Amino acid sequence: MNTQKYGIGVDLGGTKIATALIDSEGRVLARTSCLTEAQEGVEKVLERMYKTVEDVLLEAGIELNEIAGIGIGSPGPLDSKTGIVHSAPNLGWKNVPLGDLFRQRFQVPIYVGNDANLAGLGEKWLGAGKNVGSLLYLTVSTGIGGGIIIDGKIHTGSHDIAGEVGHIIVKRDGPLCGCGSRGCLEAIASGTAIAREAKAGIARGESPLLAKLAGDGEPNAKLVGEAARNGDPFSTKLLEDAFTYLGLGIVSLLNVLDPEMVVIGGGVSNLDDLLFDPVRRVVKENLGTSPLGDVPIVKAELGADVGVLGAAMLVVAQN
Amino acid sequence: MNTQKYGIGVDLGGTKIATALIDSEGRVLARTSCLTEAQEGVEKVLERMYKTVEDVLLEAGIELNEIAGIGIGSPGPLDSKTGIVHSAPNLGWKNVPLGDLFRQRFQVPIYVGNDANLAGLGEKWLGAGKNVGSLLYLTVSTGIGGGIIIDGKIHTGSHDIAGEVGHIIVKRDGPLCGCGSRGCLEAIASGTAIAREAKAGIARGESPLLAKLAGDGEPNAKLVGEAARNGDPFSTKLLEDAFTYLGLGIVSLLNVLDPEMVVIGGGVSNLDDLLFDPVRRVVKENLGTSPLGDVPIVKAELGADVGVLGAAMLVVAQN
Repeated sequence: MNTQKYGIGVDLGGTKIATALIDSEGRVLARTSCLTEAQEGVEKVLERMYKTVEDVLLEAGIELNEIAGIGIGSPGPLDSKTGIVHSAPNLGWKNVPLGDLFRQRFQVPIYVGNDANLAGLGEKWLGAGKNVGSLLYLTVSTGIGGGIIIDGKIHTGSHDIAGEVGHIIVKRDGPLCGCGSRGCLEAIASGTAIAREAKAGIARGESPLLAKLAGDGEPNAKLVGEAARNGDPFSTKLLEDAFTYLGLGIVSLLNVLDPEMVVIGGGVSNLDDLLFDPVRRVVKENLGTSPLGDVPIVKAELGADVGVLGAAMLVVAQN
Repeated sequence: MNTQKYGIGVDLGGTKIATALIDSEGRVLARTSCLTEAQEGVEKVLERMYKTVEDVLLEAGIELNEIAGIGIGSPGPLDSKTGIVHSAPNLGWKNVPLGDLFRQRFQVPIYVGNDANLAGLGEKWLGAGKNVGSLLYLTVSTGIGGGIIIDGKIHTGSHDIAGEVGHIIVKRDGPLCGCGSRGCLEAIASGTAIAREAKAGIARGESPLLAKLAGDGEPNAKLVGEAARNGDPFSTKLLEDAFTYLGLGIVSLLNVLDPEMVVIGGGVSNLDDLLFDPVRRVVKENLGTSPLGDVPIVKAELGADVGVLGAAMLVVAQN
């Protein structure tokens, strides 16, 4: 790590652009955010992103030539080497040369990465994984994504697809996934999958409590958790089943990657013991006699900041 | 790569010790082999291993100080950093400091790795993967093992367990695996698993052809292949099912690792199209719209030499 310089991270989301300037220890010296408003088109979004960078430099009182570079976390698929965002449906982007555009504007090294990978990097350097060199990060949210960190760096793979842990197949001929396959982990254990099963259960009249909690709205993983904590058998079984598959998926990932730690983030990880207990139990049951059975499985620490901190660490960790 | 020096590879197997001396291009300049005879004890086996090293040096007319080191492929679990073989049940070994013993004897750098990892390394440098930087190697044999090669080097993981692709779980509550878990890929698609199902099918009278081919002996994957090629419906379905799971496992591995190539070796890969057709079909079905669907899935090229060549490349690829 270069200890002389600063890094800027830009987290480009469907709703919000968040930007921070950090020092080489990961301390945030300045931060800002604004709405993405992607409907206004690529150029307007880029202008807003540029402005956040200028704003954090100004706020921190740091010159552009003092920063080691700018890291940008973007929805994908993208090419981290060229910095081209191939397609970001949320933003309506197609083949945007994000890296080159930023390079022309700022004349500093620009790094682009996909958001789940950067979240993994953030947790490794500044969060739950501070004391390890390699970890597997999973985000369990509307979808399931991941980031593989080996020796402090992202394993991007040969098409920037590595770490797509939501699409490991845990159940042959299982539920249809958004990707077109069946039985992907994401189709069983994501927030979306849990909500889908909850809705079906309510429709079948299997959970009056969950129906009551959802009221006129749609059920979601959080409500299923609330019902489970209040003893609802349907909700308890639904989560138990979903997170047993999550645990089985993690058993597979441990055998393949052998990381020092597994970090789980994303909104669904806020179910805490309802998620972590079955996951850890399944891992122990299957790997109890292996050193893999002792790999810590912990909750992510950086919360909503993980994206922007990970993007900034993409700069600092390269230098 | 060091282009000045030579490397020696020693492949320590349950039956045989094979040793070769190669140059930095991977050309074999000398080779030898002998029986392991592990029942005679650790020291006798070590003496035989040392002698094979001295023999290849002599045969090639090369001095010890001209070699960059000795690479040793061993059954595991082992510690590739310290060179300690924790346990090799086939050999009756427990905590043998193989690396240190070789270092004391030869005073050259010693590298120790597990056999499936080294096979992957061999295929990357000298076999099917010569033109790629990263690959996933699977050996489908009595068990299923693997080696993950990233940027030309083995990804060992934090406990030298990475690449244990035989123990990804493809079927919840599936057949019991030797490791104690259920539904591991190895418990469904290995030679042992296929033989087990074949035997059960014969016992149920479901395949007169396979029963005839097996005669007084036990059925094995090769015989199941022969029966399938002769139109036996039971055998066709057995292989189709096993290799559909193998394909689903590879879909998961592609999503996680995103390699440039998948190389499949081991005795069961000699079933050729009976294995590769269902595997490639399942990958296309699940990943047809992703760049991962175009990752070549090819047969290993080095055959029985893969162990000793991989062990020697462990030296050459480090230098």
